[in-house]
Parts: sequence; structure tokens; C-alpha cells
Amino acid sequence: MPKSIRPDYRKDLEEAARQMILIHRLDTLIKLILKTIIKNLEVTHAGLLLYDKEKDHFVATVSQGKEGFKLPTGFIKVSNRNPIIKYFNTPELQLSKNHRFLISNHVEEFLKSETAKKDKEKKSFFTQLLFQLNLYNAKVSIPGFFRDKLIYVSFLGRKKRKNNFSRKELSFLSVLSSDVVMAIQNAWYFQDLKAQVERNKSLFLQTVRALTAAIEAKDKYTFGHTERVAKYSLGITKEIKKIKRMPNKKWEGLQEDVRVAAFLHDIGKIGIPESILNKNGPLNKDELRIIQEHPLIGSAILEKIEGLNKPTLGIRYHHERPDGKGYPEGLKKDKIPLIAQILSVADSFDAMTTDRPYRKAFSSEKALTIIKENINTQFPELVVKAFFKYCKNNNI
Amino acid sequence: MPKSIRPDYRKDLEEAARQMILIHRLDTLIKLILKTIIKNLEVTHAGLLLYDKEKDHFVATVSQGKEGFKLPTGFIKVSNRNPIIKYFNTPELQLSKNHRFLISNHVEEFLKSETAKKDKEKKSFFTQLLFQLNLYNAKVSIPGFFRDKLIYVSFLGRKKRKNNFSRKELSFLSVLSSDVVMAIQNAWYFQDLKAQVERNKSLFLQTVRALTAAIEAKDKYTFGHTERVAKYSLGITKEIKKIKRMPNKKWEGLQEDVRVAAFLHDIGKIGIPESILNKNGPLNKDELRIIQEHPLIGSAILEKIEGLNKPTLGIRYHHERPDGKGYPEGLKKDKIPLIAQILSVADSFDAMTTDRPYRKAFSSEKALTIIKENINTQFPELVVKAFFKYCKNNNI
Repeated sequence: MPKSIRPDYRKDLEEAARQMILIHRLDTLIKLILKTIIKNLEVTHAGLLLYDKEKDHFVATVSQGKEGFKLPTGFIKVSNRNPIIKYFNTPELQLSKNHRFLISNHVEEFLKSETAKKDKEKKSFFTQLLFQLNLYNAKVSIPGFFRDKLIYVSFLGRKKRKNNFSRKELSFLSVLSSDVVMAIQNAWYFQDLKAQVERNKSLFLQTVRALTAAIEAKDKYTFGHTERVAKYSLGITKEIKKIKRMPNKKWEGLQEDVRVAAFLHDIGKIGIPESILNKNGPLNKDELRIIQEHPLIGSAILEKIEGLNKPTLGIRYHHERPDGKGYPEGLKKDKIPLIAQILSVADSFDAMTTDRPYRKAFSSEKALTIIKENINTQFPELVVKAFFKYCKNNNI
Repeated sequence: MPKSIRPDYRKDLEEAARQMILIHRLDTLIKLILKTIIKNLEVTHAGLLLYDKEKDHFVATVSQGKEGFKLPTGFIKVSNRNPIIKYFNTPELQLSKNHRFLISNHVEEFLKSETAKKDKEKKSFFTQLLFQLNLYNAKVSIPGFFRDKLIYVSFLGRKKRKNNFSRKELSFLSVLSSDVVMAIQNAWYFQDLKAQVERNKSLFLQTVRALTAAIEAKDKYTFGHTERVAKYSLGITKEIKKIKRMPNKKWEGLQEDVRVAAFLHDIGKIGIPESILNKNGPLNKDELRIIQEHPLIGSAILEKIEGLNKPTLGIRYHHERPDGKGYPEGLKKDKIPLIAQILSVADSFDAMTTDRPYRKAFSSEKALTIIKENINTQFPELVVKAFFKYCKNNNI
């Protein structure tokens, strides 16, 4: 066994394969792969061209080691016509049938051979191939196939201590290569699923937003209200996170619920006649009673939807007050869900600072004073504190 | 090397580990694991208790081999107080410190020892432990830990040819165990992500459904219309799949788009005054012009949403006709997107078969006759063909 290869490389391989499974970020995964190669084979550097499914070309990703790519990584796009890609995808071109390694010495030898002198087309191809290998400073290049599809090409620089790679070392690379293929494939699956999760989330939010905007358009006095309530509510939520030192994960959940609740908080107005919503002047007792049904109508529309339980609580109770004088149930203080408390302050502030049929908009200053004067009666203390911090940070 | 263990078991291990990565269904994964064990160690059977994160207990999953569990799999739930689980979770209880295997012979020997005679508590524990091992017909049991957390326990029956497991075999099991832990962890991640995708999809559909139902409730003549149009449209889509021999994947995409489009096809009515929507009697020219704006209003509400491009086309063009006499653009024949053609037939049929302010509902028979008489003028041929098949299959 050559000195430069560690006797326990099997263990390293097993360990690397195991680690690779749980790495679902491609860049982290590739860094680990290249580090494993550099550590076990003691080469000057290693790099990798990874296939990009969407764009049907290869991209130079991370390069590890001091004598790496001469070209900047991440920007190099390599098409299927590139000689290296073509070499691995065309069995007839390959110099050896036993394995699919590409060794730059072999290319150099071939170029001096009689065959090369006779076959000008082949000579030209291998000249270009050698030029490409030199671009990557590559002594050896190894392909990774998943079901006959080339998904990556790795490059290795020169050995630090001796000239050539031993049989053992090439076998190490071959075993590693199969593991790498599986790990990349696995990471791709994850990436696709994660992208799907993100797409669906965004689809949901955008649709809810579009529908509520359309509903809101019927109520001529509240244009843009929903968007502003969402903005204020999310601002309050961020400050509450700091005040309460909320763990990230818990806060992310709260934030998502607050966003959805804010978009949908007035959805119940869909059940209120247009004549009342658009009335030019103050409402009478009966009309007020009808309009005050909107939190209940809203929660009735959404209450059966799994996954909207918390936003629905926000919608139902966003007109409650800490002193119990709110509606629909007259809940007091901490009985009012936090999400509803947040909406309540955001909603009231926006209502005060925009024109209404029966009065002009208040200034932000005046609205903030009113809110301050009504802490613990109309408005919950913690949320007001958070809202004031938010306003200060955003010059409101 | 004992005869019963194959010399190339390393290769088998590597191959199994590679296969495991890409198996994200837990039951398939566990079957592969048990088959690998049975094949390499020539045991009568192998089984596995898998940890259930949600419920914080272990569940007996698949059992392979003829002399398997005496209890039915899938139903056995094993709590953390079970002696086997307790054994692996309590280092002080373990009979050997070199490895964490549990070998039934060792338990039997221990029970005959002086220590056992003196320590009644320990004797009682190991008696129960042996009883449990016998329930699973287990000669050896191996735990799988992920970061100090026990995530599975596997059981092996007796060797087919000799009595005891060799050192090599136990080492095989130990290496395999690390791979299995990673593969299970990977499959769990995958399962969680998939569940999230499904939850989000369902959240989106349920919310759209709830909101459109709420909007529909304003139009007293169309109660249940959206749900019925969705039902008919999906029925038509299924028949079109058969007629056109559509590949599964393409059809699934179409079906999802059709479902969303059907739920949202009348969303533009939100922009039409209630007085026109609920008018008791036929509409005049101006009112008709206003109500005919609803496909354009609907597509305007949704057009900016990525992921709703195709449903939006359906919404925009569901009142077009093959002869070009429809609205809003007077598109002809194949210029009308398939999704809009589908909605058009489903929508018209439901409009005809329900009461309107100005007439009673037609019978299904009469409505189908009218549709047939207007093929290629009002209704597209292929979709009508599919709808008639759907009606026949569902006794409409």
C-alpha cells in the first residue's frame, strides 16, 4: 500500500457517505465531497462541474485547495458540447474501457501516438480536451452517472508527494463516486420538494391577498387597509419577539399566522350589505350591530379549515378589548389571544389614520396619543409597547 | 472467515447503503434493510421496531422471514418502559460495554449467574427482557441511535446453519446499523417535507373554497354552483384523459388547474354590484354588459399570481364559444384554452339545470339536448363528448 494513502480510507468513505446523506444543501455537500478527496488522496486541489437540470448545462461549483480552477467558480457554464462532457458521454471516444476515469497523462500519450497522427479529427478533439483539463488544472477527472445520465464531473489536481495515482486510489475514487451520485440525487429531491413547499406557500399567500384586495375594493373607505394592517401587525410581531425573547421557530409560526390573519381579518365584511359598508355618514344602532357581526362571520367562513385555527382566532377576536367592553364575546385581558391583540392595535391605528365617511384622518401623533391613553382599557399593554417601538424604528 | 458469511459483504453493505438513500418510503426502506440482513447473515427472520416521533413510542413494522414475529406487525405499540427499549436507553443495565448488541444467550447466562441470584430487581428485569425477546423470536437485537436518541431496534432470528453469530457478522451489523440510522433519518426528513407539501396544498384549496363560497353566498341564485361546476369539470377532465390517452403526469397538472379554475371561475362577480347580481327578473342591455365583465375582472384579480396562469386563462375565457360569438374576446375553436372549454360546458349545464330569477330549472335531459344541438357553435365537441360520457357513468 502506498504511503500516501491512509489504510483506513474505507472507514473514511463510509463515514463520508453517511454524512452526505443528511446534507441536503448542494453547496455544503460538494464542499464535503471535495474535502474528503483532498484529505484521502493528498492532492493539491479538487473541483466539480455539476449538472443543472433546468438549464441543461453544467456549472463549475466549489473548488477546494490552493491550486484550484483558473476560472472563477459559479460563473462558468459548460454546455454538453464541451470536450470533457462529450468524452464521458461518448463511450467510443474513451481511451480505456475498464473505467471511465480521464487521466491527463493518458491524453498526452495518445496525442503522441500513431493513431492520433493518422486521425486528424480525433487529434483535434483530444487537443481541445487537454486544453480544457489544463483550464481546471486537472490531472484526473471522474464522472458521476445516475442511470446513464452524467450528473457531475470532478477534477483532481496533482498529488502532493508523488506523480501518479495508484490503483487503490482510483478504486477509492470509484467507490466514492457512486456514493456522491446518490447523495447529489438525494439533495436534488430535497431541493425540489423544498422549492415546492415555498411555491405553495407563496401561491397561498398571493391568492389570499388577491381575493381580499378584491373584496376590499367593494368598501370604498378602506382601500389599502388590509395591506397596512398586515405591515403593522408583522412589525409588532417582530418587536414582541425581542421583548419576549421568543425562540426563532415559535416566532416564525406566529409570524405566519399573523400574516394570514391580517390579510383575512375583515373577510367577514363580505357578509355585510354594500349599503351599510358604503354608507355616507355615521351608522345607526342597527347598522352598527350588523357591522359588528363581521368578526363572527369571518371566523365562521374559515373555522373548518385545518391549518387556519390560529389565524381564525385572530379574526374572531380582533375587536375585543382588555377591559371586556369589546365584541363579539367581551373577553378580558389575557383571555384575548395574542394574535387578536396584535391585529386590534394595528387595525385601530390604521382606522384612526385614514379618512372615514364621518371624519377626516387623524395624524399619526394624535392616533398614538389616543392609543397610549387607552392602554389596558381598549389596548393591551405588551402589544402597545411593541407597536411604539416599531413606530419609533420606522419614523411613524 | 466463517463459511456462512459471504466474503463480499462489504460490497453488499455499500450497495445497500446507496440504495437506501434514495428510498424515501419508510416501509420500502425497512423491507430492504431486513432483506439485506437475512441475505448476508442467513438468519431465519428479521424484524424492526421503529420510533414514532409524533406519538413517542415504538411500532413493530415489517417482519421478513418465515419465523417472524408471533404478534401481528403494525399493531404492536411499544412504550419507552418496555424492557428492550429500557435496556438500550440505560447504559448501566447493559451486559457488555464494548458494543450495544443484546444477545439472548447472554441474558440466559446472566440469569443463571451469582449476580442475578443476589440482585432480585435485576433478575426480574432480565426475566422480563428475555420474555420480550422471545416474543420476537429474537436471538440478537441491535439498536440504532441518531445523536443519542434511540430510533429503532432490530431483531434477528436464529442462524440457519450454526448457533452463534461471529465477530465478523456482528461487525457487519454494526456498520449496517449506522447506515440504517442515516437512511431512516433521511426518509423522515423527506416524509416531513412531503406532508408539508400536502398540508399546504390542502390549505390553499380549502381557503379558496371557503372564500368563494362566502362570495357566492351574496348571489342568492347560485347557491352551490361553484361546487357543482368543480364536480362536473373534474368529471370531464377524467374522461378527456381517457379519450386523449393523456400521460398521468400531464393529466394531474390539468386536473389541479381545472379544480382551482372551477373554484374561482366566478370570482369576478365580486366586482359586480349586488343590485344587478340579485335582480329579480331579466337583465337589461346595460346590466348584461356589466355582468359580462366578470371573466375579465376575475382574471385581473388573479393574473399576477405565479402558479395560477392556467387557471386564470380558464377564468378569463369560460364564456367564449367555438363560433366566436362568446365574450370577452370572441376567440374561436382551438384558440379557446382547453381549461376554459371544460369550464364552459360545466358552467352552462349547471346554469340550465338550476332555477334562475327569470325561469325554472330545466331537466338534465333537456339541458343535455340543448348542449348537443349547439355543438361547435356554443360548445366544443371534445368536451361535450367527455361530458356525455361522464353523465352516462354517473346517471345524470
